[in-house]
Parts: sequence; C-alpha cells; structure tokens
Amino acid sequence: MANPRLKIIPLGGLGEIGKNMMMMEYENDIIIIDVGLMFPEEEMLGIDLVIPDISYLLEKQEKIRGIVITHGHEDHIGALPYLLPQLNVPVYSTKLTNGLISVKLKERRALSGAKLKVVPPGGQVTLGKFKIEFFPVCHSIPDAAGLIIYTPVGTIVHSGDFKLDYTPVSGKPTDLSRLAQLGAQGILLLLSDSTYAALPGYTPSERVIGETLNHIMADTPGRVIVTTFSSLVSRVQQVIDSAAKHQRRVFIVGRSMSDTTRMALELGYLNAPDGILARIDELKGMPRNKIVFVTTDSQGEPTSALVRIANRDHRQVHIIRGDTVVISATPIPGNESLINRTIDSLFKQGAQVLYSQVAQVHVHGHGSQEELKLLLNLVKPRFFMPIHGEYRHLSLHAKLAQSVGMLKDDIFVMEDGDILELNPQAAKITGKITSGNVYVDGMSVGDIGSVVLRNRRMLARDGIVVVIIAVNRQTGKLVGRPDIVSRGFVDTRESKDMLDESRDLVARTLDHSGSRPAEWSFTNTKVRDILNKFYYEQTKRRPMVLPFMVKV
Amino acid sequence: MANPRLKIIPLGGLGEIGKNMMMMEYENDIIIIDVGLMFPEEEMLGIDLVIPDISYLLEKQEKIRGIVITHGHEDHIGALPYLLPQLNVPVYSTKLTNGLISVKLKERRALSGAKLKVVPPGGQVTLGKFKIEFFPVCHSIPDAAGLIIYTPVGTIVHSGDFKLDYTPVSGKPTDLSRLAQLGAQGILLLLSDSTYAALPGYTPSERVIGETLNHIMADTPGRVIVTTFSSLVSRVQQVIDSAAKHQRRVFIVGRSMSDTTRMALELGYLNAPDGILARIDELKGMPRNKIVFVTTDSQGEPTSALVRIANRDHRQVHIIRGDTVVISATPIPGNESLINRTIDSLFKQGAQVLYSQVAQVHVHGHGSQEELKLLLNLVKPRFFMPIHGEYRHLSLHAKLAQSVGMLKDDIFVMEDGDILELNPQAAKITGKITSGNVYVDGMSVGDIGSVVLRNRRMLARDGIVVVIIAVNRQTGKLVGRPDIVSRGFVDTRESKDMLDESRDLVARTLDHSGSRPAEWSFTNTKVRDILNKFYYEQTKRRPMVLPFMVKV
Repeated sequence: MANPRLKIIPLGGLGEIGKNMMMMEYENDIIIIDVGLMFPEEEMLGIDLVIPDISYLLEKQEKIRGIVITHGHEDHIGALPYLLPQLNVPVYSTKLTNGLISVKLKERRALSGAKLKVVPPGGQVTLGKFKIEFFPVCHSIPDAAGLIIYTPVGTIVHSGDFKLDYTPVSGKPTDLSRLAQLGAQGILLLLSDSTYAALPGYTPSERVIGETLNHIMADTPGRVIVTTFSSLVSRVQQVIDSAAKHQRRVFIVGRSMSDTTRMALELGYLNAPDGILARIDELKGMPRNKIVFVTTDSQGEPTSALVRIANRDHRQVHIIRGDTVVISATPIPGNESLINRTIDSLFKQGAQVLYSQVAQVHVHGHGSQEELKLLLNLVKPRFFMPIHGEYRHLSLHAKLAQSVGMLKDDIFVMEDGDILELNPQAAKITGKITSGNVYVDGMSVGDIGSVVLRNRRMLARDGIVVVIIAVNRQTGKLVGRPDIVSRGFVDTRESKDMLDESRDLVARTLDHSGSRPAEWSFTNTKVRDILNKFYYEQTKRRPMVLPFMVKV
Repeated sequence: MANPRLKIIPLGGLGEIGKNMMMMEYENDIIIIDVGLMFPEEEMLGIDLVIPDISYLLEKQEKIRGIVITHGHEDHIGALPYLLPQLNVPVYSTKLTNGLISVKLKERRALSGAKLKVVPPGGQVTLGKFKIEFFPVCHSIPDAAGLIIYTPVGTIVHSGDFKLDYTPVSGKPTDLSRLAQLGAQGILLLLSDSTYAALPGYTPSERVIGETLNHIMADTPGRVIVTTFSSLVSRVQQVIDSAAKHQRRVFIVGRSMSDTTRMALELGYLNAPDGILARIDELKGMPRNKIVFVTTDSQGEPTSALVRIANRDHRQVHIIRGDTVVISATPIPGNESLINRTIDSLFKQGAQVLYSQVAQVHVHGHGSQEELKLLLNLVKPRFFMPIHGEYRHLSLHAKLAQSVGMLKDDIFVMEDGDILELNPQAAKITGKITSGNVYVDGMSVGDIGSVVLRNRRMLARDGIVVVIIAVNRQTGKLVGRPDIVSRGFVDTRESKDMLDESRDLVARTLDHSGSRPAEWSFTNTKVRDILNKFYYEQTKRRPMVLPFMVKV
C-alpha cells in the first residue's frame, strides 16, 4: 500500500464489552478515542477493574495530540484516572461528559494537571492533521457524541454508542441529516456500535418508560422505589415528571445518585419543578402514596443501594410491605444471579418488584438491527469496521452490512491490537500490536499477571495444602514429623485421619530417600507428586500442594 | 387443625431452580416425589453438584413407601445415585424415565439393589394410603408425567414440569380433558410448575423449530452441526426428519448423545428412516451439503462437545469455514458467559452460528403465563402452591392465581423445609424442618461445609500467605528468620522487597514479645493482625494470613 497511510488500531472494546479505546495514527500525529474500563469477568478472581494495555502508545508518546471522549460512561472514561497521568495530553468532550470526567479524576486524585476541554455540540477540534467534529447521538446518557473525523486520506464516521430515538426525553435525537449530508459527500470508513447487533427490529423510545411509570405512580397505594444508573439522567427526569403528575415527592438517595443529580441540575440537563425534590428528614409522617425514592445502582454490586435495601442494610430506605420496587436497568453481564437473588429477597419482604423481564421499565441505549442498517444506508461508507462488542456481535454486524449491499472484502471484523491501514483507495489489515488487559487489584495497577490468577483459580477450586518439612541444616535429615496446614480442601476435623496419614506418607518418603539440602528440588517434586496422588485417590480433589523446607 | 392431617414438605426446588424433591406424609405413610440435583452456583467454589438434605426423611425411614419420579431430567432424578442407597425404597416412573434412571445409577455404581418399577402412561400405583396416577404432560423430554395423588384428605394435582403443546413432535399433548374432569370433581390442592411464570403469553410449539431447521438444511451449502440436550429426543427427531427431507445424513457424535439416541431408538421414542444415520467412518469424501452432526451438550461445561469443538479439541468434529452451527438449547443460568465465548470462538473460525437470541432454534419446555392460568382454570383447586422456581417465580405465579380469582389466603408461597398441613377444609403452614444443600465435591458427599467454602472464597479473592515460625522446643525462642510462602497474593518476584519486609516485621514482633510455646494462640493472633495491617497498607489487598509454628 502506498504511503502516506492512516493507521487505525483498537486498543480495547473489540472482542469484549467495555474497556473501549482506539487510536488513529497519521505520520506524526496520533489521536486517541475513549479511554474506558471493563469490570472483571468471572475467572478474573479478586480483580477490581480491567484497563487497556497502552505500552504501544507510550512508545510513541510525543506524537499523541489529544484524547477525544464520546460520552461519560465508565466503559469510555473509566480508565482515564489510571492512564491520563501517563499520557498527559488534553482531553476533549462535551459539557456533561467533561463534568463526569472531572468527578472521576477527582475521586482518584488525578485531576490536578489534567487538561480538560469542553466542545459544544456540533463543535470541532483540530489535533495535528486530524479535524474532529462532535455530532449529537442518542444514548442512555445526555450529551453523547458521535465523531466525524476529517483525515488526509478521507472522512471517517465513528458512531459512538448510539441509538435512534426520535422522541428522546433529554437531549437531541441522533443528527441523521448531518450524516446523510456526509454520506452524499463520500465517507471512507464507518466505525459503528455493535453492542446490540444481535437484536432484531428497533430499540423502543425512552418515552415508553414514562407511560409505565405513570401507571405505577397512579395505581400503587404504596411507596415507589426506582433504581437506575445515576448517569441515566433522562430516566431520573421521567421519574420526576411522573411524580409531579401524581402528587408524589421525590427523594434522591445515595451518594452517586445525589452527586450526579446535583450536577445535572446545575448544568441544566435535569429540570425539577419547585418543591418536588424532598430531603430525607421530610419523610417522617408523609403518606406512603406521596413518596418516590430514586436510588442507584441497580447493578447489584454488594455495595449498591438496591442490594443494601434488599438485605435490610441501607441507612435510609427499608422495605415496607406494599412498596413497589422498579428496577429500571439491565444487569451487567455476569451480575444476573446477584440481581435475581436481590429480587427474590425484595419479594420475600412483601414488595412488588417490577423488572425488565416482567414490565416495560427499561429500554437500553444501543441501536438494534434496523437502526444499524439505517446508519449504514445513510452514511454509505466505502469501508466498514464494526466496533464495541464481543466477536459474535461484530460478526453479526458485518452480516448486516452485507445484507444492505456492502462487499465482504470491504468489511473489517477486527480484534484489539489489529492494525487497519487506509489510503483513499484501499484498506487492509497489516499487522497486530501488543494489546490486552491490565488488571487493577487494590492499589496496584498491572502487577497481577497470569500466574497469580492461575493460582487463585486453583485455590478457589480445591484449596491448598502446605507441607512443612524441618530438616537439620548440617545433616539434611528430617527433624520431627512433617506438618500439614490446609485451607479450603477438606473439613480438617472430619478428615483428620486422612491428613495424618498423608503426614506419615511424607515422612516415609523422606526417610527412604534420605533427602539432603542439595536435593531439595527433587524432594519437593517427589512430595508433591505423592501427595497429589494420595489426595486425589482419597477425595477426588486436587488441592494445591506446597512443600516447604525449614532448615534448623 | 383437627387430626388426621396430610403434611406436604418441599425438600428442594422451592426458592431455587433444580434439586427438585418433595415429600407427602399421612399417618404412617410417606411418599417422595422426584430426587433431583442442582448445579453449583457461582459462589459454591469447587463444588461439583448440590443435592437435597434428607436428614428429616432418614429419621422416618420405616414410613417411606416409595419414590415417584415425574421425568428423566437431572434436576428430577440426578440425586438418586447418592440418596437411593440410603432410602432403599422402590422407584416408580414411566418407561423412558426408568431407562434414564438406570443409566444414571449404573454410571455411579448404584444400580444393584435398586427397585425400579415402570408405570404405563395413565397408570396408577398405590403406596400406603396414597394412590398416584401418572398423566402425560408435554415437556422437553418424552414420557414426562404429571401426578394425580388421591389422599385421604382429598385429591392433589402435581403438574410436573409441563407446557401445553397441542402439536408436540414426540409424545402426547398434556392431557387437558383428564384435568378438566378432575377439576369438575373437586381438587383440594394444585402444585404447579413456576419456572417460566415471569414470561407473558404462550410457549411456542416444538413445531416451529422444524421450520427453522428446514430452512437451514435447505439454504446452507455447508455442513450443519446441531447441538442440543441429549434428553431432548424430539429435537433429535426433528433434525433427522429435516435431514431426510434435504438428502443429508446424520452423524450422532459424543457418548451421551449416542447412548441416549440408541436407547430412544430401541424403546421406540425415536424413528430414523433406513440409511439416515451414518457412522463417523463414512464421513470421508462426503459432500459438505450432505452432512449433519448432532452432538451434546450445549451447556458449555468445559468437557462438553461444543466447547471442545470450538477449542479445536474434539476428536471427530473440526469447524470448516462455511459450517453452520445451530445451538438448539438455552444455557443453564450461570453458564452464559462460557457459552458466549464459545459462540465467539466458532465465529472466529468462520462458522455461521445460530443461537436462540438470533434465530428460532430453541423453545423451552415450561409453560408461560397463559398456560399457567389455563391450568389453574381447568383444575380449579381449593388451594394452590406454586412449585419449581426461585422466590420471584413463585411470587409471580401466586399473583397469576390471584388474577384468575383465587384468594390470597388460599395460596401458599413456600420455601424448602416449610410444612404445609391440609385437611379437607383447611390448609396452613405449620412449621419448618431442617432442609438445605448437601455438597458433592469429588467423591465425598456432605463433608464440605460453610468453613471450607468461606476459605475457598477468601483464597480466591486475594490468595494466601503462610508464615512459618521455627521456635526452640525448650526455650520457646525464635530460631532463624520467619519464612513466608505466598500464592495468589502478589507477583512474588516483583514484590520480593515487600514480602522480605514483612518477614522482618514478624521477626521484630516475636523478638519483642519473647514468645513462648504456651502463648502461641496469642502470638498467632498478633502476627496475623500485624501482617493483615501491613499487607493492606502496602497493597489494599487482604490475603488469608496463616501463621504456623514449627517446634525444633
């Protein structure tokens, strides 16, 4: 392929949900789009968060002109506190997104020195050879943007996270006419959100939730407790509107919901009629049919408000028989069973629980198949790269593009680290860079590697047996009987005889071999093999066996 | 409540999915309905299976007249190999169910001595004061039965797992007219399947899958690989029928699928036209559009065929670009992410994957809301107890019963162990017995308790640090420097300095305290506290800290 070329490299979010990050490189200029985090998957034991590996970017640090953020969700901004101090470049975003980034950086003490720039809707920024225009899209947070990126090889459209909602509750509909205009002028490449590429039809408008809320507020004689994402400002707006209509007052509960609501009110993204919002000390004596609580989050982490309420562990909200709980959200993948247990517990306490499987109390924020096809039809890109999704979502999105007439060879289903090179006539995957997961566990970033995780998985399955072997420093002979400490393997009282037998087995093995200090690695392996075999025969379990020699 | 009374006690399956088991007691007679197992939930680390606690039953062993099994799924028969040898009573079931029980008992070497009795569809057995009639119901396995239980206090209908399918592929439709007849005569109590009580509408007929399969077999130029439950004999029948129509031959792959298919053919539950079924050695040279594989299971356990195929780890089936994989099943709750990764991997290898979210390739085996209401309307029970489901399913089912006119006080939403007592006029929850989970891990049943599990959870989160402290047997003084062994906590090379520092910290602590053997429990606590604090400060992690003293 002839020079000069544009390189596009996804650093996260392709082949997985979350951790969205991408870079574009042209000659001496690099821009970064989104810097998100991912919540750990089930097998990432003990890990708190997952962020992208940016070692490749750090080698080219002097070329990086800036970071562009599409919207304020964790999977697009959450890694900034960890990575921005290393990258140290300006961050461009719309007003609410900028506010959320500030909050996030402040929480992690990474705000000082950060260069945060607000871009108005429809505004443009120039970063080296790249000119970037922010166009409004609908998503489950206000002020979400797609990007039109003017590059020396052609124009690129990046959808951001989007859906088409012609009657959004807050914010503007996705700017389809701007996209149609651009489509007519010729777009080199479309990058488009694949999260819901498996879902047929159209994603319903946020409006439908308003109707459900109105029914609930009118019909239930008890209190209404709504849980949702704190960033889903339009949902909070709907609760306020519906409460106002039915003479109920709204209690905003929980720090995250209070902080976000306050900011959204100040920045003008949320409107509350006078006297609707109530302080928790006004609760006492208020009739039940006048009360609405709004709280975060419904994701079911053990610290979350809903789980605390269900466990009767919440400072301010306790379930009373006759309450109606509305879970206006879908669980993060992997959290389903915790949420289900929470719902069960609320039912047991006499609450009526409305969740997305039984009532229309949530619509998601991503376009379904018909919306994705509409975008492809309007933009009419020369090339297409599905982004944001696991591999099946990207594959299904590619098939949608074929169904609207694109050629298979013009569609690039990529994975993190793949390099797509483009010139005005051609596009090609030309290689792969190092990319992947960096684990955040406690205060450390990146020190947890595959060995630690493999060990945690072994420990989780069948526990551990530590064998302590004291030997004489001079003679190398066994001193006393080997000791055994086990945890998570068997009930140590019930299995005392079996464990004792294994101590004797080790003693016999060492006496016979007449082990000497020099031969420790041999002894170690031998003890391990013998115990692995013995324990498996006795229990059909495979604990981690760890011989340890003490020289005395 | 006046004597004599009937007691009904669920021992499993209420408040959880799986592990279905129930007992009914009248004077000197006890019958047991179903003896199922449950697959472990996420937090039951390292556990293989979960079975019901039958300690209450074992106290009344001489009263037990027999076990009645509704159908051959694991969650209804799976605990028999573990519990039947203890209970040692006859087991009554229909023909296919009986065959599956034999296979299960044989696998676990529990067949000898088992008294298995076949009951024909519509047949009756008398067990003490109970007379039990098996009536055919539709479910995702042939020969499924509901039960009509004639007792001295009145007639009870137990739905089994059921749906209404007026055009089933194999077996008979649910016998609605028998139920209507009984309803007219008066039913004291209905026990009905709540698994899909959250789903509005009707469950589609199995027939719709046949149409999808016909399209796939006709349209794809490549091989078709269908994965489903081996017990879903009707689905295998549909694959065979569709293959025959499109001149494809069917390869049954995998031991479980081969065994079940062979048995179903022999017992007449499956029909294959001559020459349709092929042996794997006939595969070579066969055109791709003539090939269908059927394999189990699609539940995504690492040993399962689908995962092995996706990982290129299967002896007989390797994905070729252009293959179509049909996942004709829904994942067991908790297995979703493994299944999703498997689908991703199949897409990466160039297969087209059809799964229930993107195509009508599976219908489930339980009735939805309208079917549940229809059953309530036909049976018209005096009392109602929703069974089979987590608490929210039971609660929603109770609300359905209220919506068709039952009174709240006549509906009993119970949990495992609750005792429902009935006489011809009244029903009441009168107490609770000990019930719960018994864990099977490796070859042991029941020795894993909450301590072992709590330890595994701790180990899984932040690993373990064992501190080995050698002291002089006579003086009680420290010998040498304390040793530290850690696994799953930190990268031991990168964190060598920190771990060394913690050794010194222990040494200093022990020198100061001048520990003596008698004070070990005090020293132990002290070392643990100091290290917990030190490690948390250094890493924000909380490994399990385990001091161990070696006397030399």
